[in-house]
Amino acid sequence: MSLEHLTVADLKIAVLGKAAIPSPLGLSTVYGDNIVNYVENSASVLTCHDRDQLLKVIEQNKPLTAFEKAGPREKIYFDPSKSRAAVVTCGGLCPGINNVIRSLVMILYYRYGVKTIYGIKYGYRGFIPKFNYESLLLKPENIADIHEKGGSILASSRGAQDIGEIVDCLERMKISLLFTIGGDGTLHGAQAIYEEISRRGLNISIVGIPKTIDNDISYVQKTFGLETAFSIAANAIRCAHVEAVGAPNGIGIVKVMGRMSGFIAANAALALNEVNYVLIPEIPFDLEGPIGLYKILEQRLRSRGHAVLIVAEGAGQQYVTGGKGQKDDSGNQRLGDIGIFLKDGIKKYFKEQTDIYVNIKYIDPSYLVRSVPANANDSIYCIQLAQNAVHAAMAGKTGIIIGRWINNFTHVPIKLAISENKQLSPEDPLWLNVLESTGQPITMKNP
Amino acid sequence: MSLEHLTVADLKIAVLGKAAIPSPLGLSTVYGDNIVNYVENSASVLTCHDRDQLLKVIEQNKPLTAFEKAGPREKIYFDPSKSRAAVVTCGGLCPGINNVIRSLVMILYYRYGVKTIYGIKYGYRGFIPKFNYESLLLKPENIADIHEKGGSILASSRGAQDIGEIVDCLERMKISLLFTIGGDGTLHGAQAIYEEISRRGLNISIVGIPKTIDNDISYVQKTFGLETAFSIAANAIRCAHVEAVGAPNGIGIVKVMGRMSGFIAANAALALNEVNYVLIPEIPFDLEGPIGLYKILEQRLRSRGHAVLIVAEGAGQQYVTGGKGQKDDSGNQRLGDIGIFLKDGIKKYFKEQTDIYVNIKYIDPSYLVRSVPANANDSIYCIQLAQNAVHAAMAGKTGIIIGRWINNFTHVPIKLAISENKQLSPEDPLWLNVLESTGQPITMKNP
Amino acid sequence: MSLEHLTVADLKIAVLGKAAIPSPLGLSTVYGDNIVNYVENSASVLTCHDRDQLLKVIEQNKPLTAFEKAGPREKIYFDPSKSRAAVVTCGGLCPGINNVIRSLVMILYYRYGVKTIYGIKYGYRGFIPKFNYESLLLKPENIADIHEKGGSILASSRGAQDIGEIVDCLERMKISLLFTIGGDGTLHGAQAIYEEISRRGLNISIVGIPKTIDNDISYVQKTFGLETAFSIAANAIRCAHVEAVGAPNGIGIVKVMGRMSGFIAANAALALNEVNYVLIPEIPFDLEGPIGLYKILEQRLRSRGHAVLIVAEGAGQQYVTGGKGQKDDSGNQRLGDIGIFLKDGIKKYFKEQTDIYVNIKYIDPSYLVRSVPANANDSIYCIQLAQNAVHAAMAGKTGIIIGRWINNFTHVPIKLAISENKQLSPEDPLWLNVLESTGQPITMKNP
Amino acid sequence: MSLEHLTVADLKIAVLGKAAIPSPLGLSTVYGDNIVNYVENSASVLTCHDRDQLLKVIEQNKPLTAFEKAGPREKIYFDPSKSRAAVVTCGGLCPGINNVIRSLVMILYYRYGVKTIYGIKYGYRGFIPKFNYESLLLKPENIADIHEKGGSILASSRGAQDIGEIVDCLERMKISLLFTIGGDGTLHGAQAIYEEISRRGLNISIVGIPKTIDNDISYVQKTFGLETAFSIAANAIRCAHVEAVGAPNGIGIVKVMGRMSGFIAANAALALNEVNYVLIPEIPFDLEGPIGLYKILEQRLRSRGHAVLIVAEGAGQQYVTGGKGQKDDSGNQRLGDIGIFLKDGIKKYFKEQTDIYVNIKYIDPSYLVRSVPANANDSIYCIQLAQNAVHAAMAGKTGIIIGRWINNFTHVPIKLAISENKQLSPEDPLWLNVLESTGQPITMKNP
Repeated sequence: MSLEHLTVADLKIAVLGKAAIPSPLGLSTVYGDNIVNYVENSASVLTCHDRDQLLKVIEQNKPLTAFEKAGPREKIYFDPSKSRAAVVTCGGLCPGINNVIRSLVMILYYRYGVKTIYGIKYGYRGFIPKFNYESLLLKPENIADIHEKGGSILASSRGAQDIGEIVDCLERMKISLLFTIGGDGTLHGAQAIYEEISRRGLNISIVGIPKTIDNDISYVQKTFGLETAFSIAANAIRCAHVEAVGAPNGIGIVKVMGRMSGFIAANAALALNEVNYVLIPEIPFDLEGPIGLYKILEQRLRSRGHAVLIVAEGAGQQYVTGGKGQKDDSGNQRLGDIGIFLKDGIKKYFKEQTDIYVNIKYIDPSYLVRSVPANANDSIYCIQLAQNAVHAAMAGKTGIIIGRWINNFTHVPIKLAISENKQLSPEDPLWLNVLESTGQPITMKNP
Repeated sequence: MSLEHLTVADLKIAVLGKAAIPSPLGLSTVYGDNIVNYVENSASVLTCHDRDQLLKVIEQNKPLTAFEKAGPREKIYFDPSKSRAAVVTCGGLCPGINNVIRSLVMILYYRYGVKTIYGIKYGYRGFIPKFNYESLLLKPENIADIHEKGGSILASSRGAQDIGEIVDCLERMKISLLFTIGGDGTLHGAQAIYEEISRRGLNISIVGIPKTIDNDISYVQKTFGLETAFSIAANAIRCAHVEAVGAPNGIGIVKVMGRMSGFIAANAALALNEVNYVLIPEIPFDLEGPIGLYKILEQRLRSRGHAVLIVAEGAGQQYVTGGKGQKDDSGNQRLGDIGIFLKDGIKKYFKEQTDIYVNIKYIDPSYLVRSVPANANDSIYCIQLAQNAVHAAMAGKTGIIIGRWINNFTHVPIKLAISENKQLSPEDPLWLNVLESTGQPITMKNP
Repeated sequence: MSLEHLTVADLKIAVLGKAAIPSPLGLSTVYGDNIVNYVENSASVLTCHDRDQLLKVIEQNKPLTAFEKAGPREKIYFDPSKSRAAVVTCGGLCPGINNVIRSLVMILYYRYGVKTIYGIKYGYRGFIPKFNYESLLLKPENIADIHEKGGSILASSRGAQDIGEIVDCLERMKISLLFTIGGDGTLHGAQAIYEEISRRGLNISIVGIPKTIDNDISYVQKTFGLETAFSIAANAIRCAHVEAVGAPNGIGIVKVMGRMSGFIAANAALALNEVNYVLIPEIPFDLEGPIGLYKILEQRLRSRGHAVLIVAEGAGQQYVTGGKGQKDDSGNQRLGDIGIFLKDGIKKYFKEQTDIYVNIKYIDPSYLVRSVPANANDSIYCIQLAQNAVHAAMAGKTGIIIGRWINNFTHVPIKLAISENKQLSPEDPLWLNVLESTGQPITMKNP
Repeated sequence: MSLEHLTVADLKIAVLGKAAIPSPLGLSTVYGDNIVNYVENSASVLTCHDRDQLLKVIEQNKPLTAFEKAGPREKIYFDPSKSRAAVVTCGGLCPGINNVIRSLVMILYYRYGVKTIYGIKYGYRGFIPKFNYESLLLKPENIADIHEKGGSILASSRGAQDIGEIVDCLERMKISLLFTIGGDGTLHGAQAIYEEISRRGLNISIVGIPKTIDNDISYVQKTFGLETAFSIAANAIRCAHVEAVGAPNGIGIVKVMGRMSGFIAANAALALNEVNYVLIPEIPFDLEGPIGLYKILEQRLRSRGHAVLIVAEGAGQQYVTGGKGQKDDSGNQRLGDIGIFLKDGIKKYFKEQTDIYVNIKYIDPSYLVRSVPANANDSIYCIQLAQNAVHAAMAGKTGIIIGRWINNFTHVPIKLAISENKQLSPEDPLWLNVLESTGQPITMKNP
């Protein structure tokens, strides 16, 4: 759902009931006393921050849509000493998962006093009896060091599981607060769990921490792990550049993650500014023809003697699957390998259509970008997401994820977050930065 | 000047004259055509993004204050082929300076076609004849690799220089566009240069790229280099933690930069979540007394056997200078060494007032945090600042810095930016994150 | 040629003539005066350092073979002020090439006073007129920072060139000292150049700095770049381990360089001790059968739930090429892709012959391990090799490489160095370390 | 004791008794069968590897001294299933301690079958009842990840403890194999323990793994952690260089560890080749006078405008303590702070005796270099030391450390190892490398 069509109803946050228990956090309710404050329930951040657009909305007498602000509430819904929490991680690995797990446990345990916290193993499978995976009891002492490690100490799995069985398990385990760390597939599952919980009238809060290394969840301006991922991808670019200039007519090609969106590719290209061409799923490009990739590469080799190219895995899929790909366990489209395709295609082009003998060096850092520990900034972000998730769940908010909107942490209904994938618009200033930094033509699509 | 007292006039951007030359960038003016757009001159981002606050402003019929958005303009003021630019770096080193220099040159040279770009050596001194420093002619080929290096290829210096001589030099060199990379002191100089240029009626645009590793410039939500700095500081925390747990009653103390503001300390404490106490300039603390630092440290050692403390260099200055410090060349208050003071004070306390033999390990990473190359995210940020600075200057904007406001790059009058230092409010959510992550008491000030 | 068959003649070092010029280095010739010394021409290090073996040699009255020690000589052959040097880099990239180039230049220029040093571009091609590559004039100021960069500032190429043309070029350029940085192919070329120089009776010294990331040059106990390479490979292992434990029945596979020898694989497996199986070219293994790889992997998954495997690119070639591979430009056997083969084979095995659904994560860091800058230890090693190469060449030694033998830098005739490839013996203590650390069976070869 | 005075008796290794139990390792005793071999008890590596020196020894009919080779023995002394081991770490932290601990446990547990392994907390204190520290039971599963962390999971302490109480504790705990990880002080303790064990006629093997970040243990050519330490120190040099060139007349000073020996300083200066002066404890230098440090620095600033200086903490102690320092808990001489002394002295010199205004940037990375995890090469070295320590102890060797001699792991009597400190001779080729790389004068001592 696009931003301008958002309604107040779309942004409304579900609660389990009246929050009546005083929070144990001991914060202030007074601004200006130099003591950190509880966040009022009415606090919200505008969806729009452009003055002209806002003036139009005001003129038209439309309501100002806004995201509910996340943060600790003065009154909470759950009695900490009587509540049990569970954490589950699903889908692919991403830098920072362990940081989120650790922070969830730390704040639940030390700040709110929730002492029983289960770690569910291997994603949603961990709820299903037939898999027989034992859950971990998460205590501060056994998770103290996990933020320094990549991956997930709970491990993960892909694929949907029976929602009824999952909720049965939550009931059996007497869970009050469920935290799901995962992306699109996980959130679809979380929404179904939320609906089943509502149907059964259970007092279970479910709060998602959005995880997608591709940064493709709507209404979340940044997902954790992205920065770490493009930092690593930038190292690969450095190597591709070194290789490209290290041989006659060298071409370095780096393939990075990004199924539906090119955020990793675009950011990596800016982070290590040695890239000449960035190919992303959002922006179609031709291979042949006067402004197609091959000809443009040829011109560059003739003038400069080397080139570096970065390609997101979801770019140019029409060339590799013809759009007829299958789906994987998570329900994602199975992608063709555009990296290998380009490597072979470029080689063939130069051999058959030019007199240039190219030296192509192809780098696919693959899992190297996602299984590393979170960098410093992502580590902070994970803490912030986790702390806000706990505040939300303790306050009885449910069916939501923790979002990020113009520098504020927010509550976003899961339903809204999964309504569509976020993509990098070719009209986004970030893409302009890329074009200006690479010198890549504004379009590689022949008219 | 505080946010709520900002007026429309405060935010007004000066221009040299009518921008009448079509930009050579070849962007679009149509939204929705999938081609990156020029930014309209009227585009602006609201200073306020809280719905309740905004509703109050509307109710009171006050004008909506907003920052002018940065970005490429369809019409520019300077004719690129006839314009010369200069870049100067002043004050202390900071990760990312070279990235900014490189991006300024690249976009001036390749995108706009400004081929004569001078690098002024050793800060404002480079303009002054008596120092006799030769300027560099910056070309893409001789700056191609500088983004991988820390420091500044132009080197820097501290201290004010004669404004008249500087402007004389700009005239002699026939500079049209001056880019200053520096912090508070630099910007005071830039404002004076701007005023002298106006007084002389010269057609010189001056645009600042704010540089302060402490992140303490007003109306700029993040300065470049901060992330890199606290990443390195986080490494020091890791070591302090290892040392603290590696000996009986170990205490690790890390001193970090932060003269007036605790952003590095607070972020580092979150980035490596092994810190128990964070001391920053903004928040006073007692040493003695039942909730003073010493007693609290003692309690922690008795219960946990080790502690880690991070202190910003500007924290607790009353203990070391009694508030009577001198000024350095940049006009900054000379600070007492709070790190050494605490190290000695804590040692003395435990020796004289307890039966605990403490092992204190003191780490002052000092220049290690500021002379490294920018990390991936800071590198991107530097590119964005530089590109927007060039767009602004080419469009004839002057007397401004490039700011950052709720995810938008903006134009901020230098005068406004230097009206006060930005600090970390104890009521900022970031400080809440710190308190929740460290478990530090909300106050260490005895009543 | 194996160590025990070495004769004194094999180890004899060629010289261009009598070294009669006093060295400008100003070192001491007296031991015990606390001033660094020249190395005497007779100084040599025993090939054998095992007492029992040595006693046998003595008993049999055989001569004690020894490598000539490298180092500065009191008298040198070339007059520095009248000599010109050239440096060429050939073959694949390797961490440390730029460090070697820089140190060659620095010591030639500053210590000996050779002021004209050419950098030949693109390997041996740079000598051949038809390619028309311009040589660089290497000065301290233009190479000051290159040691911080991966790759080679001179770039490289593969393949042999006409020896006559190369020597013609050396004559035309009036080169006295030629330094070749390269591996097996390069050294074959260097030997041919050396022979042609001798044939023509030219006064040109040729000294090789052995470069092979695979560490496979005989009589050189360590080549530069190896450590950096396995450090990076170790990072890939960390990721593979994280991925393997992060999913049900996870298998991480890492492919690393090592055409003929498994040094990178073995060292990486020790450097990050999370590997269960190491496959190297030197040690054959079965896939099928009761102690074949597949069955052993199956047993491990059943007992531990995950596994990590590292494979050198040259391992198990009979499975991928049937031994009938072609040759590449450097004359190396073209290898089949054992990594992809194993990934597919393991997947197929588990699908068809077991009830286990495996999650295979395949990582091929490829160029990432060779195009990075040298790490600290390799940087030192590069300096030492380069300094000793210059000492040797200035003293008129020729037709040699700088070797390393039991902690001494040595002179090794090129002819001897290329007589065979060095491999990792399964009876080497290093392989024992690997077996003990991984727990891998002593053999995976069915009887 | 210097190398040339070593006798066969000095090198003799003590054993607890006849090793009669077949090793469970299942290695080969046949060379050439491509299966890793046990090491024969007679295997030894010559102390001397210089041909001329050896020929003299032979001529004089003196016995050839040699170190016993380390490695697995075919027959062992202890019955693994009935033996208990203990590990203790003493003295300062050093990169790699946890790697050693982990490898000791892994090989004891999995390869030999020793299932009861105690980790003694806080050094020798952990044996003393009054401190009441609980020992850890070390199992593979609870130490699986420790090699990725700096420090020591057992923590450490300084200072001697009562030897009788320690041996009482070993008896009470029924320890058969004691592994001590520590430096000079620890080894003095270990020797005393060994002697007390002998006096009591106990069947306890004690094997030391030498730990000294300064690399100053005799007859051990490299200690673990050194490489990691100088890698980190090299980073500090990079920063010092950036700072030095970043300001007018910049001087970067880096202080590194090295109480008695300059190995870290010398290696770091080679590892990051931007250092102009290296000051180490082994080589005296003048401050004043025509070739003293101050004048030389002045000359460099006048000609080049910046300088970088690295100083080992033990250098120039006569200037700071006048040789009258006190001792610390480990019995080490308390050092004066030569770094701060030089910083102040240089500042004063330039202010009072020249017209140059210097910008001094002082970096003391202190604990940052020792509390990090081991790098790749050190990690391997730690494994090798630990595996060989276990082989030695299982075979009943005692009163020894694992040494390293010309590429072989060896057994060295503790008594010999502590007979004197190893230092970096100014006549060592490594120092020549430093002089050649820095351009530092051969002496800074006025005649």
